[in-house]
Amino acid sequence: MKLFRGNDRRVFYGLLCVLLLGFSGAPAGAAEATAESNATALNTVWTLLAAFLVFFMQAGFAMVETGFTRAKNACNIMMKNLLDFSVGSLAYWAIGFGVMFGTSAMGLFGTDGFFLAAADPATEEGLWKFAYWMFQAVFAATAATIVSGAMAERTKFSAYLFYSFFISVFIYPVVGHWIWGGGWLQDKGMIDFAGSTVVHSVGGWSALIGAMLIGPRLGKYNKDGSSNAIPGHNIPLAALGVFILWFGWFGFNPGSTTAGTNLSIATIAVTTNLAACAGAILGMITTWLRYGKPDLSMALNGALAGLVAITAPCASVSPLSSVIIGAIAGVLVVVSVEFIDKVLKIDDPVGAISVHGVCGAFGTLSVGLFAEAAYCKSSGLAEVNGVFFGGGLSQFITQLTGVAAVFGYVAVSAGICFFAAKSLFGLRVSDDEQLKGLDIGEHGMEAYAGFQIFSTQ
Amino acid sequence: MKLFRGNDRRVFYGLLCVLLLGFSGAPAGAAEATAESNATALNTVWTLLAAFLVFFMQAGFAMVETGFTRAKNACNIMMKNLLDFSVGSLAYWAIGFGVMFGTSAMGLFGTDGFFLAAADPATEEGLWKFAYWMFQAVFAATAATIVSGAMAERTKFSAYLFYSFFISVFIYPVVGHWIWGGGWLQDKGMIDFAGSTVVHSVGGWSALIGAMLIGPRLGKYNKDGSSNAIPGHNIPLAALGVFILWFGWFGFNPGSTTAGTNLSIATIAVTTNLAACAGAILGMITTWLRYGKPDLSMALNGALAGLVAITAPCASVSPLSSVIIGAIAGVLVVVSVEFIDKVLKIDDPVGAISVHGVCGAFGTLSVGLFAEAAYCKSSGLAEVNGVFFGGGLSQFITQLTGVAAVFGYVAVSAGICFFAAKSLFGLRVSDDEQLKGLDIGEHGMEAYAGFQIFSTQ
Amino acid sequence: MKLFRGNDRRVFYGLLCVLLLGFSGAPAGAAEATAESNATALNTVWTLLAAFLVFFMQAGFAMVETGFTRAKNACNIMMKNLLDFSVGSLAYWAIGFGVMFGTSAMGLFGTDGFFLAAADPATEEGLWKFAYWMFQAVFAATAATIVSGAMAERTKFSAYLFYSFFISVFIYPVVGHWIWGGGWLQDKGMIDFAGSTVVHSVGGWSALIGAMLIGPRLGKYNKDGSSNAIPGHNIPLAALGVFILWFGWFGFNPGSTTAGTNLSIATIAVTTNLAACAGAILGMITTWLRYGKPDLSMALNGALAGLVAITAPCASVSPLSSVIIGAIAGVLVVVSVEFIDKVLKIDDPVGAISVHGVCGAFGTLSVGLFAEAAYCKSSGLAEVNGVFFGGGLSQFITQLTGVAAVFGYVAVSAGICFFAAKSLFGLRVSDDEQLKGLDIGEHGMEAYAGFQIFSTQ
Repeated sequence: MKLFRGNDRRVFYGLLCVLLLGFSGAPAGAAEATAESNATALNTVWTLLAAFLVFFMQAGFAMVETGFTRAKNACNIMMKNLLDFSVGSLAYWAIGFGVMFGTSAMGLFGTDGFFLAAADPATEEGLWKFAYWMFQAVFAATAATIVSGAMAERTKFSAYLFYSFFISVFIYPVVGHWIWGGGWLQDKGMIDFAGSTVVHSVGGWSALIGAMLIGPRLGKYNKDGSSNAIPGHNIPLAALGVFILWFGWFGFNPGSTTAGTNLSIATIAVTTNLAACAGAILGMITTWLRYGKPDLSMALNGALAGLVAITAPCASVSPLSSVIIGAIAGVLVVVSVEFIDKVLKIDDPVGAISVHGVCGAFGTLSVGLFAEAAYCKSSGLAEVNGVFFGGGLSQFITQLTGVAAVFGYVAVSAGICFFAAKSLFGLRVSDDEQLKGLDIGEHGMEAYAGFQIFSTQ
Repeated sequence: MKLFRGNDRRVFYGLLCVLLLGFSGAPAGAAEATAESNATALNTVWTLLAAFLVFFMQAGFAMVETGFTRAKNACNIMMKNLLDFSVGSLAYWAIGFGVMFGTSAMGLFGTDGFFLAAADPATEEGLWKFAYWMFQAVFAATAATIVSGAMAERTKFSAYLFYSFFISVFIYPVVGHWIWGGGWLQDKGMIDFAGSTVVHSVGGWSALIGAMLIGPRLGKYNKDGSSNAIPGHNIPLAALGVFILWFGWFGFNPGSTTAGTNLSIATIAVTTNLAACAGAILGMITTWLRYGKPDLSMALNGALAGLVAITAPCASVSPLSSVIIGAIAGVLVVVSVEFIDKVLKIDDPVGAISVHGVCGAFGTLSVGLFAEAAYCKSSGLAEVNGVFFGGGLSQFITQLTGVAAVFGYVAVSAGICFFAAKSLFGLRVSDDEQLKGLDIGEHGMEAYAGFQIFSTQ
Repeated sequence: MKLFRGNDRRVFYGLLCVLLLGFSGAPAGAAEATAESNATALNTVWTLLAAFLVFFMQAGFAMVETGFTRAKNACNIMMKNLLDFSVGSLAYWAIGFGVMFGTSAMGLFGTDGFFLAAADPATEEGLWKFAYWMFQAVFAATAATIVSGAMAERTKFSAYLFYSFFISVFIYPVVGHWIWGGGWLQDKGMIDFAGSTVVHSVGGWSALIGAMLIGPRLGKYNKDGSSNAIPGHNIPLAALGVFILWFGWFGFNPGSTTAGTNLSIATIAVTTNLAACAGAILGMITTWLRYGKPDLSMALNGALAGLVAITAPCASVSPLSSVIIGAIAGVLVVVSVEFIDKVLKIDDPVGAISVHGVCGAFGTLSVGLFAEAAYCKSSGLAEVNGVFFGGGLSQFITQLTGVAAVFGYVAVSAGICFFAAKSLFGLRVSDDEQLKGLDIGEHGMEAYAGFQIFSTQ
């Protein structure tokens, strides 16, 4: 007999508590601690702290992008990173969160819950909605900021602001609805625990479309089609950015339980960390073998590639599998960066398409290969076994469907977005402005007043 | 019938627990987990983690101040930020905490609890006092460090050390006692949840007095009274500083519940974040309209302005109100910076007076305008409605009284402090030292050995 | 009558819970929150969050080392810091953790638990093992990364990778087993709460051996034996690194309870903070008295010295004692840096030997001087009084035994490690590469493309 479920059960406990306290003479109705209320509080604390860590990733993205590009565009990059978060947060509050988690229209998008209007601070459910929004908002902002790096050093600031709004209300929340908000891919059983696809591929594929449409930086490609390296101006800052991102990822992945009482946060932290380590090492080894020297940029991108790849499977695979997933991502990112630069001839100054798009897709697929029922169970996921653990191809096919559908949707919607931005504002700054730097052109300031900087850069 | 209250209730639970465990055969007296003990532990964990985040704001302040000033003074700025925290912590441990939270003398200042001498590690109350001190100490240090930016690039290091001690034992704790420590403004019902006034205005008004008394940097004002911009040397570092501060503010505001079991930490995180976003956007828009280009410095200061303004009302207003408060602060900070620079002709290199003093005062007043009883209730505050929510003028007048009284007290006490520093050490370095830079003059070192830096800077 | 203990008790609670829920009609067997389960969850959350903070210290170490050395080696330093963590994590997962915490062979080293193979995600014990591994892994990586600074600007990257593996599987875990893993020093009652010896002295003494064997940087010592200062290229970055380290130390020390339900986390946070403050102040004062000006490098190193020193005694001493310990460390680090540079003529670019080796040893000994039974009791340690609190010499002698034994073991094992590295790869880059910088020589890149940098640096 099932008299009490979910919220009803909470009411029951409240009554029980009041009764017990009545006997003991304690003031009835006061907020006495119960096991239930403590669990709720712990989950709120955990989810908020994880959200704060994910927020801090904004600093990481800003540092990575600045460090890997030229000094003359550093202010513009800071401005983009600050404003995409600010615009994105407000847009996600007003619209995006409702599109993602509102009542579903045919599994395609949500239709209510805008402006957090329904969140009542007088109820525990309302307060939890605030905490949940906070966690989801910093995820939305992560997807938004990925594009910045791929379009760096040549994009009009006004167009970038337009894009930031668009992805936060239209591109990201729709995909989020499909996979996390009760949409059709969630119904199919797709597993993307912390968002290799929802967050990273959405950002990465948007970056791909944006970088294609805006074209390369001046001087990036020679007339014969060969590519020039344009070195970044502050590699220690880029490295700091990667450490900050790694740090923030401990909120991103384990935090995606949104429950500190879910003890699988421990395994998730371990798989997240090991994949990043393996990615860094394999990124390094691949360049060492290929170019004769271990390359820092690719070791850093390898760590990020490992982190992106483990984001979907972090809660469903063993430590050993996480090492393998991270290692593959570390190789993949080097190959992909070279392919996109040399073959596709798309200019992606920081490798965002490879790190987030390609490795995000790989990570999502890897669930279908490496998932183990025991790990899924401990984190509350459906108990799935991947191809390598006797589960057959079905989960892999589900994952592949999701990856393909999201690629298609993002390609179209981001295409619309950037075409609209182009006709409204223009996408690309003038060649003259690009040469002088966007700091002067867009913002009338410079990043390093007093330092002697080469005019050729 | 109210047999048990506060600690008594805890004793009751302890006994109950022992009894129950007696029946079950478990060892009596061992530290078995109870709902009560878990709540205490969760609150301790939350308060400490929030304190750690607030500590990290020291790095944010250091980066912002360094980034917005010149390379030749960067070591001095780091030294000031490291030492004001160190001196301030020890001073707050020895004296300040007692002045702020000790037994009140006529509602004006506390009179016991120095050196944490009464905190007994053998009791739960004693251990909580340690946690509470940790949280309060990093707040005190925040107030102290605000002044550094406004007096940057010309202040004698010894005078700055003297001031750091003085504010931590005399200026800050007295205001803190009035509003948080059981003093007369708390009795009046003033609401300053996380310290727009207690921390930020105290820092900001001290900065105002200090910057007035020390006078402008060489070359800041021309003979005709017009003002020269002195550009900062490392804007990416300043932007990193703002991201760190924003990150830390998630400890500052939600942490001010000092209870993870208070679920309003979720709404507080949301209002804090939205106000910062609105502040950044409006800071940007204001400069765009006024100067023709969106300015990064003012977008960054706008974010900080929003954060400072929401600090008092964060637990008593709705998300929509937080957006409005942040937006107003974003405009206000631009206007205020220009007013202080062009009209008052006070040289404040980083805009600390506007960000912390002016927006701190505005934020404190905004409680009287935007507070809603439902939000107050959920966070445990007195159920107040502001002017815009039908509550009449009474709360606003209380807030205004607090703002005015604190301005008066800080103006006098900081005046005494800086006059004392002037007569004891001298406030201002020599013109020659200012030209060469305080790094060489005060500390015999330079920040960027090996880099070519313009001699004119 | 003791029917239930440890896990049995948990089973009992589970049964009780099922029974109670049976009466209430709630679904039996579901993961209902109990006081026991909440305590476990809170401890897992606390331990993981502390681990994340300690992870972030990697960024701090990287920034400190880069800031205090020359621009031409910045990429190499980032690469070392990224890779020692990555290699170290994998090595500690595969081997080190088992050597440290596996079943003890005669108190000397552990013999099982490799690859986390025995950690079953289906059990609470298994999940806790993952959390515990995460916390221990970031500690192992801290020990590893300390050496990097002392051998900076002249070490072959391949040799450094070899060393990173070696310390993570052989040097660090053996010492860790002795003191934390059930080994002979733990049996003797040695107290090293968070690792002044286990982590910092192991890193510091390895650094001593490495720096001795590799010899000084070109141009460090003149023919007459006098020493030249080689100034760092980015002091603000170094200062940021120290703030990050301090921030991370709040995970390092309080986190070492690995239990948020252990309320002594509050006292530990306080003693940690006060020792750092006192260290910074005394580091500054010592240089002020000795060289006529307050030196930033030594104030920063003083803060670190205080943090290292308080790491062993943080849970067993009073706030006042922590101030004294930090203050002594602040003086000691200045004296030690000078002694090692001028007398021993060992070139340690960042002072790692003094900060971590010498102050780590001092901090470990200080337990035997300053421990108080009341503080020990509150944190669950054996109730010990130090020499200054009437406890006699016995604890001090135990501490001294541990310090000496660890010095001996590390000297020998690190000696073997670096000799092996020398014969396998060579330890030292060519003089030509050293002059041009390791960024170009080892990695084919530069850190600050576009900036004018003096050729002499």
